[in-house]
Amino acid sequence: MTSLPVAVDAMGGDDAPQSVLAGVRIAAERGIPILLVGQPEQLTGSGEFEVIPASQTIAMGAEAASSVRKMKDSSVVRAAEAVRDGRAAAMVSAGNTGAAMAASLLRMGRIRGVSRPAIATPILVPGRPWPNVLLDSGANTECSASWLVQFAQMGAVYCRDRWGVEEPRVGLLSNGEEAGKGSPLVKEAFELLEDQDWQARTGAVFAGNVEGRDLLEDLVDVIVTDGFTGNVALKTAEGVAKQLIGALLGAFDSSDEARQGAELLAPALVPLYEDFSPDSVGGAILLGVSGVSIISHGASSPTALANAIQVAHELAERDTVGSLRRILSSE
Amino acid sequence: MTSLPVAVDAMGGDDAPQSVLAGVRIAAERGIPILLVGQPEQLTGSGEFEVIPASQTIAMGAEAASSVRKMKDSSVVRAAEAVRDGRAAAMVSAGNTGAAMAASLLRMGRIRGVSRPAIATPILVPGRPWPNVLLDSGANTECSASWLVQFAQMGAVYCRDRWGVEEPRVGLLSNGEEAGKGSPLVKEAFELLEDQDWQARTGAVFAGNVEGRDLLEDLVDVIVTDGFTGNVALKTAEGVAKQLIGALLGAFDSSDEARQGAELLAPALVPLYEDFSPDSVGGAILLGVSGVSIISHGASSPTALANAIQVAHELAERDTVGSLRRILSSE
Repeated sequence: MTSLPVAVDAMGGDDAPQSVLAGVRIAAERGIPILLVGQPEQLTGSGEFEVIPASQTIAMGAEAASSVRKMKDSSVVRAAEAVRDGRAAAMVSAGNTGAAMAASLLRMGRIRGVSRPAIATPILVPGRPWPNVLLDSGANTECSASWLVQFAQMGAVYCRDRWGVEEPRVGLLSNGEEAGKGSPLVKEAFELLEDQDWQARTGAVFAGNVEGRDLLEDLVDVIVTDGFTGNVALKTAEGVAKQLIGALLGAFDSSDEARQGAELLAPALVPLYEDFSPDSVGGAILLGVSGVSIISHGASSPTALANAIQVAHELAERDTVGSLRRILSSE
Repeated sequence: MTSLPVAVDAMGGDDAPQSVLAGVRIAAERGIPILLVGQPEQLTGSGEFEVIPASQTIAMGAEAASSVRKMKDSSVVRAAEAVRDGRAAAMVSAGNTGAAMAASLLRMGRIRGVSRPAIATPILVPGRPWPNVLLDSGANTECSASWLVQFAQMGAVYCRDRWGVEEPRVGLLSNGEEAGKGSPLVKEAFELLEDQDWQARTGAVFAGNVEGRDLLEDLVDVIVTDGFTGNVALKTAEGVAKQLIGALLGAFDSSDEARQGAELLAPALVPLYEDFSPDSVGGAILLGVSGVSIISHGASSPTALANAIQVAHELAERDTVGSLRRILSSE
């Protein structure tokens, strides 16, 4: 059991630092120890938290890798260093995703045996208490088949540690569910994933190919893909949900009668909203680096950020990185 | 102006031939000449239509290519032959998608100059009278960059002929909107698509990369991708829409109060439903073969099928295949 704080990139996010501080306060009320990283003069009024000073901020749209290399005193780099140096148990950033990835990778390093870290994003499954974990959802545009097997292992360990899924089922994202469907990468990965050894060692089960329409279905627990396809699928899902919900809200407000109907429906729609809300999932995680690194949406609400901080704290306590190390370093 | 009929695969679809005949009757009422293809003994009671007899039916789940090769007297093969032989102006099938593709390709042949035919699927854009055309949405799992340029040309011609979009904007599906983002295939295609020659010859404009979240947005008119990514994106969009709408309908029926609210909302929701309904789009098209071949969902409603038949008829009248031939054969 660790009592180290979670390092939070106070400067990362659409309305940072105010939006971040609002989330931090909610997390602190839940008893989670927190370390802020950012420009001290912008963090006055947050005297209850220890601050690691960082004079630079990497902008949301900045080129990630070069920014991280050049801006050594940026908040996201200092946050990753705090984890590396044992000052923090985990880090959370709602800033530039690429910069958070690069800073985590460069400062924390990879877990021995891991070829490439991957971003694992939770995708809600309506009616099921835990989501599907999609990885890689964007870290590696090009992947080899053996990396996909490591993604499967990392996703399964994460799924078990975070949601208590005993024997995670792993699906491979393809353009058809039959074995033999897919790109050359998918076909090669399919064969490697059928190997019983990694399944036994990880405590996971390979369930074969899944399709885009299965992303939100209760068919598997982990969905493995390359970072290009994962990014397209994830953003497609977000785009469709946004369009549909937007159209719906427009209809709800289109007449007095509609507004009256929407009011009557509200009690039935609120749980639905909570189900589909990104707030409840608490951010994506960069799996494969030597430390817990949670990457949240730039537009995260205070609750979403507090949930991300709580997840970071819990994963550090459960030593998920240690579990990953045991399984992936032993090969 | 052609007066040739549209050949309809009467045996293809989830409740064929009944479901198909229901759609055919709606299309016939609109004045479209129709030729049924199927087993005559199952088509009694449809005496108002001429029938091309075909003794075999390729099942929905059958392996497509080998079925088409072996079942030479199947309805979908005979429908494609009717187009090839000049007995029909176009064909429509709601049966096995792969079989409809293979039959069209093998019997009609490719347009000269076309490397590979592609499936073009309309994706609704809320609030805009025409959809985005996504291609390839599944015909070619592996693609070369030059094929993607041909997909752009074919998609643009189709978009202009079918919806009257004067100078279609073409987007390239990638994992980031900036130039230089993407897989090696996407990067290479980006460079080829920037070439002004094909743009001028086609009367189209290359608008750069688009992301998954842009699928339903009014940013471009044609979205080009390989058949693997296109299939994943399309099925993801369908899956998310299905889950959201299912959850919504569940909420509408969850209590007396909710049912009352839903009733008040109905007038505002009906146009929304029509907007998002697959019925209005009328099926995907296989572009690049020497004939109009429309491929509808197996679960198409009678209205959806009638719309697909009407689209097939209109594209034949406008000689879309001739336009494609002029632009693609001239290279």
